[in-house]
Amino acid sequence: MTGSSIPAAKAEDTIVAAQTCNVAILGFGTVGSSVARILCERPNTHLRLTHVLNRNVARKQVDWLPSSVQWTENIDDILSSEADIVVELMGGLQPTEDWIRRALASGKSVVTANKQLIARCGPELSALARQMKQQIHFGASVAGGVPVISGLHEGLAGDELFKIRGILNGTCNYILSQIETNGIPFATALREAQKLGFAEADPTEDIEGLDARAKLAILARIGLHCNVPATAIVARSIAPIDSIDFEYASQLGCTIRQISWAELKKEEDSETTPETTSSRDQLFAAVQPALVELSSPLARVEGSQNLVMATGRYGGETVFGGHGAGGHPTAVAVVSDILAIARSRQSELNYEESYAVQPLDKTPAVSSDFATRHYLRFLVKDRPGIIAGLATILSECGINIDAVVQKPGCPKSHLPFLITLEECNASLVESALHQINQLDFLVQPCLHLPII
Amino acid sequence: MTGSSIPAAKAEDTIVAAQTCNVAILGFGTVGSSVARILCERPNTHLRLTHVLNRNVARKQVDWLPSSVQWTENIDDILSSEADIVVELMGGLQPTEDWIRRALASGKSVVTANKQLIARCGPELSALARQMKQQIHFGASVAGGVPVISGLHEGLAGDELFKIRGILNGTCNYILSQIETNGIPFATALREAQKLGFAEADPTEDIEGLDARAKLAILARIGLHCNVPATAIVARSIAPIDSIDFEYASQLGCTIRQISWAELKKEEDSETTPETTSSRDQLFAAVQPALVELSSPLARVEGSQNLVMATGRYGGETVFGGHGAGGHPTAVAVVSDILAIARSRQSELNYEESYAVQPLDKTPAVSSDFATRHYLRFLVKDRPGIIAGLATILSECGINIDAVVQKPGCPKSHLPFLITLEECNASLVESALHQINQLDFLVQPCLHLPII
Repeated sequence: MTGSSIPAAKAEDTIVAAQTCNVAILGFGTVGSSVARILCERPNTHLRLTHVLNRNVARKQVDWLPSSVQWTENIDDILSSEADIVVELMGGLQPTEDWIRRALASGKSVVTANKQLIARCGPELSALARQMKQQIHFGASVAGGVPVISGLHEGLAGDELFKIRGILNGTCNYILSQIETNGIPFATALREAQKLGFAEADPTEDIEGLDARAKLAILARIGLHCNVPATAIVARSIAPIDSIDFEYASQLGCTIRQISWAELKKEEDSETTPETTSSRDQLFAAVQPALVELSSPLARVEGSQNLVMATGRYGGETVFGGHGAGGHPTAVAVVSDILAIARSRQSELNYEESYAVQPLDKTPAVSSDFATRHYLRFLVKDRPGIIAGLATILSECGINIDAVVQKPGCPKSHLPFLITLEECNASLVESALHQINQLDFLVQPCLHLPII
Repeated sequence: MTGSSIPAAKAEDTIVAAQTCNVAILGFGTVGSSVARILCERPNTHLRLTHVLNRNVARKQVDWLPSSVQWTENIDDILSSEADIVVELMGGLQPTEDWIRRALASGKSVVTANKQLIARCGPELSALARQMKQQIHFGASVAGGVPVISGLHEGLAGDELFKIRGILNGTCNYILSQIETNGIPFATALREAQKLGFAEADPTEDIEGLDARAKLAILARIGLHCNVPATAIVARSIAPIDSIDFEYASQLGCTIRQISWAELKKEEDSETTPETTSSRDQLFAAVQPALVELSSPLARVEGSQNLVMATGRYGGETVFGGHGAGGHPTAVAVVSDILAIARSRQSELNYEESYAVQPLDKTPAVSSDFATRHYLRFLVKDRPGIIAGLATILSECGINIDAVVQKPGCPKSHLPFLITLEECNASLVESALHQINQLDFLVQPCLHLPII
């Protein structure tokens, strides 16, 4: 029993025959320069880096790129060039969107890592690409080096996915891991993350979940074929999480992570009579800090790692994990997209392979009203009757208490304690909390997290 | 900020315009019938199941397939038909290989889940497919529903992978999990796995690592571009693992799993003089039970799950996990492959996308001589001087002892104890064990596992 190889000469022929594919990079920051480095270091490649565009190009120019590479600050130099693929790594919405449209319109394919842009107008750009018989790939826009977009689009194409859960923001995961490990307050963890370069000077996009919800919108489109604007997805901040919450979570056999969750459900349409009952799709989606059982792969994601779990009707749960950020891992995703386009150009496949060939036939109602168990953490000025007061309101709302936990040895004036609730809809809990948060013994509004 | 969709009519046009793709299934067992079911249940599909081939077809025929499906026992019915894609799910080497060759030769593309066949003659079959401007896909041949082949081939194409480690055999993982959880002997765990359908009546292929090494050979080809015959990969049995080994492993912060490991290393060619030193590739590869630190994702794979970790020069570690076997998950991989072929047929891409377009430029020397820490578990008839005797031999071989551990309360006539060794080559340990295993106080040969 021997495995025989293709004769070496034949394999080389394939390489030699491969059409050279010219690549222009817009934006020579961390990811851009990593992409350039990989392209230069790849042996036997038919990819040729021809242009690099950046502001203040003189400041950016490096000596390790071939002298044939043209450095420019002017997009027209690239649009009028022989570049086949334009790689957009500048970020931001403008002039990025215009430049991508112009690149597609001038018969160039596009690779981008721009999650906000793709979440906002990915389908339009894909339609334009198709019209121009070009391609737009955006594998690096979600989870950096983790090949989850191609995994959902191709590897799991044979399944009917209905649920995607993930840790899509490395900054939040790093900060939460630090609070957990070192028992430090949120503000300290954030400051340290900023010092180490794991968080931006303005961390709003990450901390408030806006970064993750753009990625979730893209995953919902690719994996669930649901067209949902990122702004329709509820995003909750991780800022209220304190180290005491990790202590309580640990008592419940859980940890706390920022979880991005999108789940497609067939809902009975309650407005129709039983005879005419029709089902319509509803998408449950949110980005929020949540308690995760320690046995879940989501609980074991450390530092700035990313992880995506996709659940399908046939294949069950599939997990993709790895480096969600960083120049080199993100550049791997970008170069993989460049290679996919190069392969298909070679084969005169010019547009069909593009992600948008999947019909986005679902534009479902979007809700964040997940039914889960719940974690309510209070900080109160102690006095008799607090539990009774809370229990009465919860009971009047039809909510069942699961457990009450109080850590001993805390000051009476700032007493933290925990109530867990049996499974019920988040909206029910929110309406109870609306009443509860009026109560005068609360030092701060109750922290409410789902337990998943 | 709103996400806009492609107009629904346009998306539907794409579907209507899609060329119908006719599919024939060879083998209507668990996976074959799952594939048929998914094809029938998919909405708006342009895939049409036209033929099912099986022995004793009358016994197999089901009523839930459209009456248009032709049932046959004769491969010629399919080869002469209008089928575009032949899906081979019969297993075995013959007549399977002949039939696949004949299918490709008659202008049909092929999807197969046959790991032994692909490990043995995948490159030849891919070359034949290319020659016939057809495709052969085998995503289901490794890790069932986990899209690791497309992940390595496409998602991580931009990286330069050098290491692949995985749990590729669900049967072994199930048996080891059961020994670990229930403290039962190997033989009992195997019998129970057989009773529950997790192990075959003849479990040799699984237990001895022959199944996993075929899969590892395929992963090495796709991910490391190394052409290595499965038979060149050392495979060791999990049969000697006892529940006592899990106790000792746990004391070391580890568990035991059947690990498939392939790692590409540039080795200085020691036979040349320093002036002419050239580097040549060496592939370290083995399938064997090993101690895995509890913090590794490999340690957390439970039951019949599969997991693959790929390590690249740029992207670091990427993890793919999920259901490695079972009708439905494996069928997802098969249908994903069918869809990939159907997509490219639509685009007149007839052969380039096939995996073998990657040049298999490496046919490295294969070694299983990993340098790791080592676990040596002895079962001895106790008497004075045992440790001294062992320590002398190890020391003469230049091996450093790390720790000696003995569980209290065991009978003197069958006393198990453990020696761990500092990092050294496996071959060094094997040569020491050759001497050690002659010693008359041993009740059975020493169990030697790497610690990874």
